[in-house]
Amino acid sequence: MEQQKHITTQITSKRKIPINATNEFQRTFRLQINETLKAVYVAGTKLSVNLNSCAPLNSKFFSVKCTPTVQCQVLSQVPGGNPLFSPQPLSKNSVLLVSMDTASSEPDDSKLSVRFYGAKSELLGNAVVHLTAVEISLDVDADRDGIVEKNNPNKASWKWGPNGHGAILLVNCDAETSYYKKIDNENEEIDKVSDLKDMSKIILRTNGPPVLPKGYKLSLHISQTDAERVRVFRNRSTQQTEATLSNLILGLFQKEYPLVLNKMQLANEVPYQGGKSELVFYVEGLRFPDNDFDGLLTINLSLLEPVSEGFPETPIFTDKVVFRVAPWIMTPNTLKPLKVYVCKTADNYKVLSGIKQLVQKGGYQLQICPMFKNRGDRWMQDELEFGYIDSPHHGFPVVLDSPRDGELKDFPYKDLLGPDFGYVTRHALRKEVSSLDSFGNLEVSPPVTVNGKKYPLGRIIIGVAFPTTENGRNMTKVVQDFLWAQKVQEPIALYSDWLFVGHVDEFMSFVPAPDRKGFRLLLSSPAAAYKVFRTVQNKGHGDAKMFPGTEEAVSIDNILSDKGFQEENNYVQSCIDWNRDILKKELALDEEDIIDLPVLFKLVPKEKRAVAFYPDMVNMIVLGKDLGIPKPFGPQVDGKCALETEVRSLLEPLGLNCSFIDDFASYHKLLGEVHCGTNVLREPFPFKWWNLEL
Amino acid sequence: MEQQKHITTQITSKRKIPINATNEFQRTFRLQINETLKAVYVAGTKLSVNLNSCAPLNSKFFSVKCTPTVQCQVLSQVPGGNPLFSPQPLSKNSVLLVSMDTASSEPDDSKLSVRFYGAKSELLGNAVVHLTAVEISLDVDADRDGIVEKNNPNKASWKWGPNGHGAILLVNCDAETSYYKKIDNENEEIDKVSDLKDMSKIILRTNGPPVLPKGYKLSLHISQTDAERVRVFRNRSTQQTEATLSNLILGLFQKEYPLVLNKMQLANEVPYQGGKSELVFYVEGLRFPDNDFDGLLTINLSLLEPVSEGFPETPIFTDKVVFRVAPWIMTPNTLKPLKVYVCKTADNYKVLSGIKQLVQKGGYQLQICPMFKNRGDRWMQDELEFGYIDSPHHGFPVVLDSPRDGELKDFPYKDLLGPDFGYVTRHALRKEVSSLDSFGNLEVSPPVTVNGKKYPLGRIIIGVAFPTTENGRNMTKVVQDFLWAQKVQEPIALYSDWLFVGHVDEFMSFVPAPDRKGFRLLLSSPAAAYKVFRTVQNKGHGDAKMFPGTEEAVSIDNILSDKGFQEENNYVQSCIDWNRDILKKELALDEEDIIDLPVLFKLVPKEKRAVAFYPDMVNMIVLGKDLGIPKPFGPQVDGKCALETEVRSLLEPLGLNCSFIDDFASYHKLLGEVHCGTNVLREPFPFKWWNLEL
Repeated sequence: MEQQKHITTQITSKRKIPINATNEFQRTFRLQINETLKAVYVAGTKLSVNLNSCAPLNSKFFSVKCTPTVQCQVLSQVPGGNPLFSPQPLSKNSVLLVSMDTASSEPDDSKLSVRFYGAKSELLGNAVVHLTAVEISLDVDADRDGIVEKNNPNKASWKWGPNGHGAILLVNCDAETSYYKKIDNENEEIDKVSDLKDMSKIILRTNGPPVLPKGYKLSLHISQTDAERVRVFRNRSTQQTEATLSNLILGLFQKEYPLVLNKMQLANEVPYQGGKSELVFYVEGLRFPDNDFDGLLTINLSLLEPVSEGFPETPIFTDKVVFRVAPWIMTPNTLKPLKVYVCKTADNYKVLSGIKQLVQKGGYQLQICPMFKNRGDRWMQDELEFGYIDSPHHGFPVVLDSPRDGELKDFPYKDLLGPDFGYVTRHALRKEVSSLDSFGNLEVSPPVTVNGKKYPLGRIIIGVAFPTTENGRNMTKVVQDFLWAQKVQEPIALYSDWLFVGHVDEFMSFVPAPDRKGFRLLLSSPAAAYKVFRTVQNKGHGDAKMFPGTEEAVSIDNILSDKGFQEENNYVQSCIDWNRDILKKELALDEEDIIDLPVLFKLVPKEKRAVAFYPDMVNMIVLGKDLGIPKPFGPQVDGKCALETEVRSLLEPLGLNCSFIDDFASYHKLLGEVHCGTNVLREPFPFKWWNLEL
Repeated sequence: MEQQKHITTQITSKRKIPINATNEFQRTFRLQINETLKAVYVAGTKLSVNLNSCAPLNSKFFSVKCTPTVQCQVLSQVPGGNPLFSPQPLSKNSVLLVSMDTASSEPDDSKLSVRFYGAKSELLGNAVVHLTAVEISLDVDADRDGIVEKNNPNKASWKWGPNGHGAILLVNCDAETSYYKKIDNENEEIDKVSDLKDMSKIILRTNGPPVLPKGYKLSLHISQTDAERVRVFRNRSTQQTEATLSNLILGLFQKEYPLVLNKMQLANEVPYQGGKSELVFYVEGLRFPDNDFDGLLTINLSLLEPVSEGFPETPIFTDKVVFRVAPWIMTPNTLKPLKVYVCKTADNYKVLSGIKQLVQKGGYQLQICPMFKNRGDRWMQDELEFGYIDSPHHGFPVVLDSPRDGELKDFPYKDLLGPDFGYVTRHALRKEVSSLDSFGNLEVSPPVTVNGKKYPLGRIIIGVAFPTTENGRNMTKVVQDFLWAQKVQEPIALYSDWLFVGHVDEFMSFVPAPDRKGFRLLLSSPAAAYKVFRTVQNKGHGDAKMFPGTEEAVSIDNILSDKGFQEENNYVQSCIDWNRDILKKELALDEEDIIDLPVLFKLVPKEKRAVAFYPDMVNMIVLGKDLGIPKPFGPQVDGKCALETEVRSLLEPLGLNCSFIDDFASYHKLLGEVHCGTNVLREPFPFKWWNLEL
């Protein structure tokens, strides 16, 4: 439909209101004959006046006049007809659309009058409206450049990908203070200025007269559901935060950043400041995406109009912005290490010194958890998983605390949580927690592309029971739900319940590689171990012993002739092969992407579940190109361990350096190895998660 | 990579295995030198043999021989090289891919042998595999034509739209028996043959030898999460159900349809029947999509391989099928009525007779809920909402029972639930339930298109508090979550809390129309009412009375001169206008799509919430073109009610017939009207929900 020309000329003005077509909202407005009404007009909307329904009885014609700041058009008007200020025929569907392109300098500074006439052009009535134009825009960083732009047309929706849009919110799960600490978002107030950077800004930009006409109010509001997931503070100052920092230190902080919205307060009046001004809000994320939360949040601003004394106000305009809560992201072995975590125990000096050497070589940081803190629980891998959260304005590491809760259970909260180091956990019933809930059973692959689908942040890998198994153990549902809900590293469920301890890190690891997909998948392989042993035997060293010089020493001949043992290992190989085939399919791997490391297993008699027979070399720590591998204590051939020789020959061509660490007594005998006993904080991916095409 | 030609010629056979590339799974298979292994090969997969890792020490060459039923290719082989039966150089990555194109007639009827040679072509070892080829396909109706096709390549995923795919499951929420009834899916067994049609079929198609090699098993399994949402029965007979109906009546039913999977039994062995055979399963939906359930379910079939005595079997092949649970769909006023429900009370004979006439005219069914059942609760609209569920194979109406739970609370379960009439409810805490939970506050629009987005099933409309209102009432979260989770009729939340009763049906309705979008939105309008009254006054009938002849009679002059009353109605109009503007935007309506019906409201003094001043004409029953409208008892002009005249003049041009029903004493005075007191079961949409583009 061709639209009519405005009856007035537009005035160019410094305070010109930008047109935002996507936001256009038509508000029904009703005239009252022979009365003067007041109306607040919001930029980008239209007032829609059904002239016929407002007209005095017997009206046949109407005319419209308005000040130059007001634009009027009548939808039913015949193109090329008379200008609106001369009488027009009134039809059943004469709708007057009113808009304004200049913010008012004073309340009621613009005027509109509509006259109605009878059949003989006699005046039947006149309706006058005093108009105040305001510009209102609730703004976020919808284009993800770290700056809150003005009235982004996409601010009320969220789209994945490099051509996507939509603002991002962090769960404020770190703790600004390290003593007497509490996770920041468990506080209903802002204690420290540093906390502001963990939040996302909303700017309420307004432009209009110094005050709104009497009774009009601005209200910020959220839904009850979103109120469980978000909290909003306001910067009392109209200036940017940085300008008022000096005040803050003086304990004025809470007054300076009052709480606006939380689960007790779903709506709150916010001040209209007059002229052209900006009001800054800080939005705090409270919950990660989960089973019942897709991560999207909406924050609304409404302009409320007074009706009459004693009546509730009614909304006449609502603007909204959408955030997505940043997912928790895991970091694969191929990312650069920052800091290595390991426990000191009464008996692990060999492992400690091996780790120290590796860490020193790479120039990483090392944090040793002392005995009074770990109380003998050396399984640093199992109690926690390092990840991070990220947004265009800020990001930091976040530890996921396992529901395992061994003696190390306080370590993630007490020792890791701190300024710019977040914490998240999921609570399961004690009886639901099994060994599969330890995070040796939670790994992540390097980036892969599978049938054209890109996983630039890799894929999470967990171990579960094979579903046909009776009395199978599984990772607890709350943790699985959490992992799946993060969406950006779509998980793969492997079958790890065949292992006595039941962790995927007992049979798989990833190491960086200079070629192909940038990594290799390492798998424990009894078949590869038998091959090494047969070679040893074949070279005439059948009498060489596993575990040489110990009580457990056993010759290669003996091992190779033990049919029962071979059968157990065939079974183990078939379990690993099932996982191998899943990994090949789900990560799109070729045979050339996989390296089989020689590892033998044995079955625990009653349970019929597997444990490593000698130190499980796949359970290594990967620090760049330096690998800390459990020392296997294999048969000596020409003064060298045949197993170490084999592993070196497989890994060194990739530019990897193999250090074999003696974890026999202090880890292996306790059913874990080097990887189980360490954890590595790594750099985040350079790839930004919001650029994923989901 | 160009693939090598097979060394054997393919045999054409009646039992030829179809190729299904999307399903291809490569299974790692390990040879054992100088031993004969057995392997079951599953059609559509490949066995992947890493020759180097299986080879005897010092092997330099290999050759492969196999029976004509087996196809072999070696990935590393140079194109145009020697045929595989003559020695080939063995490289590190020599991988032999084995497939078969013919199902075996007997176990172990195909053979593969691989020989390994040393540097001087001396034989170092020979590995033999006896192969059994079986075809296994777990099948569903993934193309949505009501028939379970064979091995649809898309059976393991779900896609919306006319070009989409994926099987559909009904929640089996009806009751096959009407006495001592129970919702069918609360039974762990199938009682009646008629129950089978409410379930979706899975067919396990197998083709192979009469028996599987010893120890191999088929297992059907589901995840723990899905087990809460689905149950699987098996047809013991290999024939189609229909053939065995005669047995069933004889109480053999449960034996004939044993339970296979439920939440206590996540995996179960299913028989391999030999030859070319089909095993039919019946899948029963237990739960509707909700906040924590996107509606998708996976059912898996695995082939388990024996390892050795005393070891658990390991899976060697898994096939899976995906279902989406059909959403619950509401029916707008524009769909053809089937049956009208109304209560009989001691005082409502006028309404009853009015409804009876309308129903008779249209030839619909009428169900009158007698007094001993309704115990005076006449609000048939509020206790329940009719909808339906649908699938390519079957569909039926389903009543959503409101958590309102008035005296009519047993009616949906006791009187509606039955054969092919389903029941669903959501439970809320008593204290959470408000008047907004009555289903007069739950409506649905006719089909619309909004900014290019199609809603061929319309959009659900509910009323909530405006979020800035303190102490606002809302529809309870569990019901809102349920409605949003159905996805196919994306809800719109209107603002109804300004009403004392708080239902959207107090200010809006839809009627069919022959033009434009096929319907009109009717809105209650005080402004329209004032206009009618002013016209009446203007014509010299200012002394005509509302409610003529009753104690409450009041002249039009009096009404028009009451400023306070006018103010209240201005406020009401502003509340309705807010909703009007939302509906215009969310349903893409023009002014011409909306009809304002003259209705006045008054405010309840303390609450300041609105109730209709005279019978609220928008609260009508819509039966095709026949409208049952609350009789307004407006001022008589020329022997006719001016309000009725106005409404007729608005609606009759659309071909609608207006019957005014006197509900004054028995409904209006109790704060409801005709619509509140009735409910209409309607035909489902001709549009199939799975053809939506979501």
